[in-house]
Amino acid sequence: METIHGFARTDYCGEVTSAQLGQTVGVCGFVQKQRDLGNLIFIDLRDRTGIVQLAFDDSTDRTIFDKAFTARAEYVLAVRGTVRERESKNPDLKNGDIELYVTELRVLSKAKTPPFEISDKVQVNDELRLRYRYLDLRRSELQQTILLRHRIVKAARDYYDRHRFVEIETPILIKSTPEGARDYLVPSRVNKGKFYALPQSPQMYKQLLMLAGFDRYMQIAKCFRDEDLRADRQPEFTQIDLEMSFVEEDDVMAVNEGFIKYLFKEVLDIDVPTPFARLPYREAMARYGSDKPDTRFGMELCDLSAVLKDSTFQVFSGALATGTVVGINAKGLYSELSRKKIDKLVDFVKTYRAKGLAYSRLAPDGTVASSFEKFLTEKEVADLHAALGAEPGDVLLIVADGDTATAQTALGALRCEVAGQYGLIDESAYNFLWVTEFPLFEYSEEEGRYTAMHHPFTAPFYEDVALIEQDPGRARARAYDMVLNGCELGGGSIRISDPDIQERMFEALGFTPEQAKERFGFLLEAFQYGVPPHGGMAYGLDRLVMLMLHRSSIRDVIAFPKVQNASELMSGCPAQVDKAQLDELAIATVLDEA
Amino acid sequence: METIHGFARTDYCGEVTSAQLGQTVGVCGFVQKQRDLGNLIFIDLRDRTGIVQLAFDDSTDRTIFDKAFTARAEYVLAVRGTVRERESKNPDLKNGDIELYVTELRVLSKAKTPPFEISDKVQVNDELRLRYRYLDLRRSELQQTILLRHRIVKAARDYYDRHRFVEIETPILIKSTPEGARDYLVPSRVNKGKFYALPQSPQMYKQLLMLAGFDRYMQIAKCFRDEDLRADRQPEFTQIDLEMSFVEEDDVMAVNEGFIKYLFKEVLDIDVPTPFARLPYREAMARYGSDKPDTRFGMELCDLSAVLKDSTFQVFSGALATGTVVGINAKGLYSELSRKKIDKLVDFVKTYRAKGLAYSRLAPDGTVASSFEKFLTEKEVADLHAALGAEPGDVLLIVADGDTATAQTALGALRCEVAGQYGLIDESAYNFLWVTEFPLFEYSEEEGRYTAMHHPFTAPFYEDVALIEQDPGRARARAYDMVLNGCELGGGSIRISDPDIQERMFEALGFTPEQAKERFGFLLEAFQYGVPPHGGMAYGLDRLVMLMLHRSSIRDVIAFPKVQNASELMSGCPAQVDKAQLDELAIATVLDEA
Repeated sequence: METIHGFARTDYCGEVTSAQLGQTVGVCGFVQKQRDLGNLIFIDLRDRTGIVQLAFDDSTDRTIFDKAFTARAEYVLAVRGTVRERESKNPDLKNGDIELYVTELRVLSKAKTPPFEISDKVQVNDELRLRYRYLDLRRSELQQTILLRHRIVKAARDYYDRHRFVEIETPILIKSTPEGARDYLVPSRVNKGKFYALPQSPQMYKQLLMLAGFDRYMQIAKCFRDEDLRADRQPEFTQIDLEMSFVEEDDVMAVNEGFIKYLFKEVLDIDVPTPFARLPYREAMARYGSDKPDTRFGMELCDLSAVLKDSTFQVFSGALATGTVVGINAKGLYSELSRKKIDKLVDFVKTYRAKGLAYSRLAPDGTVASSFEKFLTEKEVADLHAALGAEPGDVLLIVADGDTATAQTALGALRCEVAGQYGLIDESAYNFLWVTEFPLFEYSEEEGRYTAMHHPFTAPFYEDVALIEQDPGRARARAYDMVLNGCELGGGSIRISDPDIQERMFEALGFTPEQAKERFGFLLEAFQYGVPPHGGMAYGLDRLVMLMLHRSSIRDVIAFPKVQNASELMSGCPAQVDKAQLDELAIATVLDEA
Repeated sequence: METIHGFARTDYCGEVTSAQLGQTVGVCGFVQKQRDLGNLIFIDLRDRTGIVQLAFDDSTDRTIFDKAFTARAEYVLAVRGTVRERESKNPDLKNGDIELYVTELRVLSKAKTPPFEISDKVQVNDELRLRYRYLDLRRSELQQTILLRHRIVKAARDYYDRHRFVEIETPILIKSTPEGARDYLVPSRVNKGKFYALPQSPQMYKQLLMLAGFDRYMQIAKCFRDEDLRADRQPEFTQIDLEMSFVEEDDVMAVNEGFIKYLFKEVLDIDVPTPFARLPYREAMARYGSDKPDTRFGMELCDLSAVLKDSTFQVFSGALATGTVVGINAKGLYSELSRKKIDKLVDFVKTYRAKGLAYSRLAPDGTVASSFEKFLTEKEVADLHAALGAEPGDVLLIVADGDTATAQTALGALRCEVAGQYGLIDESAYNFLWVTEFPLFEYSEEEGRYTAMHHPFTAPFYEDVALIEQDPGRARARAYDMVLNGCELGGGSIRISDPDIQERMFEALGFTPEQAKERFGFLLEAFQYGVPPHGGMAYGLDRLVMLMLHRSSIRDVIAFPKVQNASELMSGCPAQVDKAQLDELAIATVLDEA
C-alpha cells in the first residue's frame, strides 16, 4: 500500500468545477467505478461531496496508467491532476463538464468486492445493508441524510442559543422511578445490588434547572425506552429538549414557531408561515378524528347527530344514545371505491374498534347504492347528503358508535387511509399546527382510575383547577402539541409550579402522599424553595429529520440504528457477556431453559 | 400565590442599566435579600444575569409595600417598576447605580428558609450542597460556570462546523468488549440474558464513520467508565470527539491549535499563540519527568549521569548501572526548604516509588549541608553544582534509581510539588504544548506482555514498522497529547489503516487471530472494504472547562455530578429496584449477606 505522507488534498471531489480549468488539484476518495476502454481508462472518484471523473490515456505515465488499470470499486485513492474539459459531458453530475487528467496516483487502500454495490439505485435487503452499515452509509442518499441531520441540529443550537437558551447536560445514569417499567437498568459495580436507570426523558432535571434559576434550558438529549419496538421506534432516541421560566403558552409557542421558521429556511430554503393555526383538542377530534390532524387535504369529519337525531334506524339511534354518528365525503371517488374496496375499508375501521362502516356510493348517473339509506326517511337522506355536500360521483362513509372518541378516531384514520390511497395528499407540503386544550386526565379502564394524559407535572387551566376534584374528565391541561402533516413533531406544557396544586394532582391520580413522595420526593422537596412558573417542550429529533427530508423510516436518519428487536446487526449487540463480568456486578441471569 | 398570567417581562435583572432611567421595566427573579428600614424596604432581585435593587417607600402603593414586607430570601417575584438613580450607589454591582421604584409586585412563589444561604461567600459542606444541588446551582459562581460551559461547547461546535466536521451521534447502547472490565452493562428486556454496554469512548464507531466516507466527524460524546472513582473522575463524562480522513499528524494538530485559539479568544478574550511547542515523549520525560509537563515554570530536571559516571558512592553508581541520577535546583529556596520540610519531600517522592531523595542546602554564607556530598570527590561536587547552576541560597534535590522512568517521574512530581508549595507557578498563564513520539507499546510486568500505550488501533511511525516484531519497546506511535499547564487536555493518534499492520499489531499484543476477531471482529471485517488513512483526537470536556475557568474540581463544572462512590446525592441513585423490574429483565442480584 502507498501512504498519504506528503500528499496535499486541495479540494473535495464534488467541488472541483470548470472554474478551475487548467489548474492542478489534489483529491482523495473511493472508486465508484472504473471503465477500461483499452487505451483509455476513466475512474469516477467519490467523496461525501460528490464525484469527479479521473482520466488516463496514452500520454499518461505508464506506472500511473497501470495502477489505474488495477483499480476496483471502493479502492481508496489520492490523486493529483489537471482540470480539463470533458469530451462527453455528463449533465447528471454537477461537475460533469470537467475531468481530472491524472499526473499522480496513489492507491491508499485496496478493497474486496463489497457484498452489494454502493448505489442508491440497487435493491438490497435491509438485513444485509444493516450488517454492513458502514458500506450502506457510503450511499449518497444516506450520506446526504446524515449531513442534513447535522445541519438541522446545528440550526437548532444556533437558534436557541440566539434566544438565550443554555445547553446543559443532564445525567444519563439516573434513578429509576417505581413505575419505570420501561426503564433500562444499569447495575452498579461500586454499589453492588443497586441500579441506575437510563432516562426516558430529562423531565425532572430540566424542571430542577428552572428551579435553579437557569431561565432557559435546551439540550439535544439522548433518551431510552426499553419496550417492544414498533416499526418506527428505537430503544435510544434523541430529543430537542427545552424549558423556559416565567412564561405562558404563548411564549413557548412563539419561540418554537420561530425555530421552525428558521430551521426550514436555513436547511431547506422553505418559508413556513407563522403563527401556526391552533386547534383545541375537541375540535381536532371532531373535524379530523385525531389529536394530530393531517391538514394537507380536506375531507373533514361531519357530525351527523343533528341530522339523524330522530332516526329510527337502530344502528344510528343506538349510537346516538351515548355517542355519535360521523361521516366523510370521499369526493369524486365513485369509480375508485368499488364495493370490494369498501369491504376492505370496513376491515380497516374495525382495526380501530369501530363496529362497521356504512356507505353510500353516488353514481354519476344519479343512482345511489347504499348500505343504510333504505332505513332512513327521505328527508333524513336529503339532509345527510346536504350535510356532507354529496354530489354524483361521491362516496359517503359513515361510522356510528356509542363511544364518540371511537367513532371519530376510526373515521379519522379512514380519512387518512383514503387520502393516502387515492393521492389526495400534497406530499411536498409542510402543514404545521398546534393542538391545544388537551384533557388533563384520561380514564384508564384497566387501572380503574384517572391517569395523566401527558405527565403529572402538567398544569391545569387556571379556570379548571376546581375540576381536579369535581370533574377530572373535564379539566383541561395547559399542554400543546406541534403537529406536522399528521405527525406529532413535539409537545409540551406549562408545568405546575404551585405545590398545593401539585398535591391535589397527585391525589386525583390516586397516589397517597407517601407514594408521591417515594416517586417524586426530591422534586417535591425542591418545590419548597421557590419555583419560577415554567413550561417547555420536546421534539422527537429523529422524526423531525425524517419528516423534513421525506424519509420513510426512522432508521434512515440514524447513523447506526437498531432493528425491531432492539439489536444492532453490525456489531451484534446486545450479546452475552462473560460470567466474570456479571460476578463483578453481583448479578446473575435467570433464564428458563426452554 | 399570584400568577404570571399577563405579566410582561421586558428585561433580565442584571441588564437593567442607567441607560433606561425613567423607563418602566418588568423583571422576574429570586429574592437575594430583603432589607426592612421601617418606612423603606429594599429587595435585591436575582436572575442568572445578576441583581437589580427594588425600592419601596412611603409613596409606594400600600398593598405592594405590604407584600414587599413579607418577602423572604428565595421568594420568586415578578416586578414592574421605574428605573431611577440610587441614593447610595453600590460600585460592586454592574448596575449598582440604579434601582427600580416598584409599581407592580406579584409574589409568584414563596420559599422555606433554604438549608444554606445562596452565596459564593458562605462555607457549606459539600454533601449538603450536593444534596440540594438545585439550590447550590443558584449561586453566581456555579451559574456562571454552567453558562460558560455552554459557551465553550457552542464555540467548539461552531469552530468544527466551520471546518466542515459533521456532528454524528454514535450509539449509547453498544456491544461489550471482552476486556471491558470497566464497562457499564445494560440488560436487555427484549433479548433476555443478553447485555448492552455503555461506551467508554466512541472509538470504533468514529473509525467506521471514516470508512463510511464522512471525512470529518465530531461529536460532543457521553462516555462511561465503571471504576472506583479518583478524586476527579466521574462515571459519566463528556468528550469532544474528532476524527479526520486523509490526514497526518500535522493536519490534526493544526486544526486543533486553531480550535484552542478560537475557543480562548471567543470565550475568555485571550490570545493563545500558535503553533504550540512539540516535545517528544523522551524529551518531556528527561526535562520534566512527565509526559504532561507543566511549563509555566522552570526548574527542569538535570541528568547527572555524566557528572557522576565514575562516582564510587554506591547509591549513585548502583543506580547508574541500569538507570539514572537526576536533580533539580530549587533556586533560592534555602530558607523555605528546612531539613524538616525536606524530610516531608522524601516521603513525597517515595509515594512515586523513589527509594529516597538526596539534597544539598547551600546557605547564603557559602556553607553547605548535604546528605551525599561527603561521598563524592571535590571535582564531582563542583561539576554537580555547575551542572545544576547552584548558587548560595539554592537547594539541590536529587533522585537516583536503577529505573530511569521511576527516577524521572518521582523528581518530575517533586518539581511540581515544590513549585506549587512555594508559589513559582503563574496561575493566570495558559501554557499549551504537544507531547509526541510516544512509545507504541509499554511492557506490562503484570500480564507479562506488551500492551498498547494508547489503544491497539494507533499507527506506528512509518520508519518503526519493522520494530513491531524486532524491538517493540522502541517502536514509536503516531500519537500526540495536548497538554495544558501540566494536565492532559486531549490526545489522539493517526490510526492503522493497513489491515496487515493491524494484524501484526494484534500479534505483538499477544492476541491469537481468533481473539482479535472475537474482540474487534466487525471493525476488522470493515477494513477489508477500503480504508481512508485517518486519525483523530478527543478532549476531556469537563477537564477543559475546569482548566479554562480555573475551577478546582470536575464537580464544579457539571450541573448534576456524582460523588466519589458514583452516587448522586440529590436523587439518591443508584438505588435498589423492585424485584418485579429485575424479573422482567431476567436477572437477579447475587449479594453475600455480610
